[in-house]
Amino acid sequence: MSLIPQVVIAGAGPGDPDQLTIAVIKALAAAEVVLHDRLVPAEILALATPQAQVIETGKEGFGPAMAQEEISALMVALAREGKRVLRLKAGDPGVFGRLDEEIEALEAAGIGYRILPGITAATAAVARIGQSFTRRGRNTAALLLSAHDTRGFAEADWRALARPGAVAAIYMGKRAARFVQGRLMMHGAAPETDVTVLENVSRGSERVIGTTLAELPATVADLAGPAVILLGLAPRAARPALAQRAPAPALSAPHRSAAPVTAAPLTAEIREGRA
Amino acid sequence: MSLIPQVVIAGAGPGDPDQLTIAVIKALAAAEVVLHDRLVPAEILALATPQAQVIETGKEGFGPAMAQEEISALMVALAREGKRVLRLKAGDPGVFGRLDEEIEALEAAGIGYRILPGITAATAAVARIGQSFTRRGRNTAALLLSAHDTRGFAEADWRALARPGAVAAIYMGKRAARFVQGRLMMHGAAPETDVTVLENVSRGSERVIGTTLAELPATVADLAGPAVILLGLAPRAARPALAQRAPAPALSAPHRSAAPVTAAPLTAEIREGRA
Repeated sequence: MSLIPQVVIAGAGPGDPDQLTIAVIKALAAAEVVLHDRLVPAEILALATPQAQVIETGKEGFGPAMAQEEISALMVALAREGKRVLRLKAGDPGVFGRLDEEIEALEAAGIGYRILPGITAATAAVARIGQSFTRRGRNTAALLLSAHDTRGFAEADWRALARPGAVAAIYMGKRAARFVQGRLMMHGAAPETDVTVLENVSRGSERVIGTTLAELPATVADLAGPAVILLGLAPRAARPALAQRAPAPALSAPHRSAAPVTAAPLTAEIREGRA
Repeated sequence: MSLIPQVVIAGAGPGDPDQLTIAVIKALAAAEVVLHDRLVPAEILALATPQAQVIETGKEGFGPAMAQEEISALMVALAREGKRVLRLKAGDPGVFGRLDEEIEALEAAGIGYRILPGITAATAAVARIGQSFTRRGRNTAALLLSAHDTRGFAEADWRALARPGAVAAIYMGKRAARFVQGRLMMHGAAPETDVTVLENVSRGSERVIGTTLAELPATVADLAGPAVILLGLAPRAARPALAQRAPAPALSAPHRSAAPVTAAPLTAEIREGRA
């Protein structure tokens, strides 16, 4: 029995290298082969050793470049060659990361593995808008929800989500925005329900868009990058207190779907002292 | 307007220092004062500079040593003195971290802040049992749930949670275990529904207990440390493939509430090569 894992499956977080955990940095430094999803940025892959073989599997929400079966087969083949393989997924591997298919392939091949969690888009996003995902007296539960399943648009407990105070982070929701909106409004959700969309959360290209359920499909129509939709949350109103770096980009105003502005990258400059 | 945050509110993750993000390590190194919850371990606090003032606020699920209002007032007072304050919470500050009360105190005082997410217990726990929090064809949504609210035991959408395939991570569920069990079984959940309890997840003292909904109250009765309850998930059956360090501690068998065993700490030893 292998006491040390041969394959490490790790979460790269939302994109900012500062959001990586130490465990994942160590895994990058130790890997002989890195199999990564398309959403893992170059700055993170640069933390692998120069000798490491870095292979993009290209899997993304739509138009996968490599089928899941191919990725699993490649991972197994590399591990069988005796390589220390790092399978690096954006966000957290256990949250909409299709982790099970890959684990089952490893188990079928008798290959040891270890899973390292990563910061998932939902908590990175709520932190960026100065909010809490859960809040006493408002919601004692927070939902991580995918808008897609193997069968297409994913059903959910729309009735519960349509209630005032419901909070959910919707992943892969761009193309499903009209479906989500329709289901929620059918169950009585108010058109003016707060919604915040974060595109490329934590990256230099991050955009934070405060909108409403009524305007959600229009808001996401032009987004190119990965987006997480925060249902029931608005960017905190007292924006001056939300720390922003110069050139102090404002969050777009809540309740409007005006052209989104670029928000400050999250790279913590806390060593710089106070302005 | 302060361009650089004076107070950084950060998540320390589940306890293993390797699960800290780089951003939080930087915040620890830069802080002049660290205000931390009781659950943040000494190994993490040791990453602050020797000059830093480290203050335990002692807040925990039960029997708070310092009232929330006192913590907020102390944080504001220290920031007003011009100190770089790090407010360090176990897990993720936005997930059952009572973040809003503290943010509101900062905003009322006009003090800038930045929030840094941390690995939350739920995703750390599912990674430890070789599972995925979400899984195509089983659950397209995962719920983070607190068993307590300001009014006592917290209500939830028990009907949805009682359905086969439902997956939820229940925080602060030890004292509420019988309440949770009762609500779920009232709505038709099978007594043999898989439940995994992880105490002190990611720490050296971690225990992983595979049990069932029927046996949940008995399982948690003797736990002393913080625990997360994973409803609808069993430790992966193919345990040999789950990487364990010598002296190879086994996960306790699923479907039994036998005396739990100590699982391997998560400190990644991936640099050590393969056995």
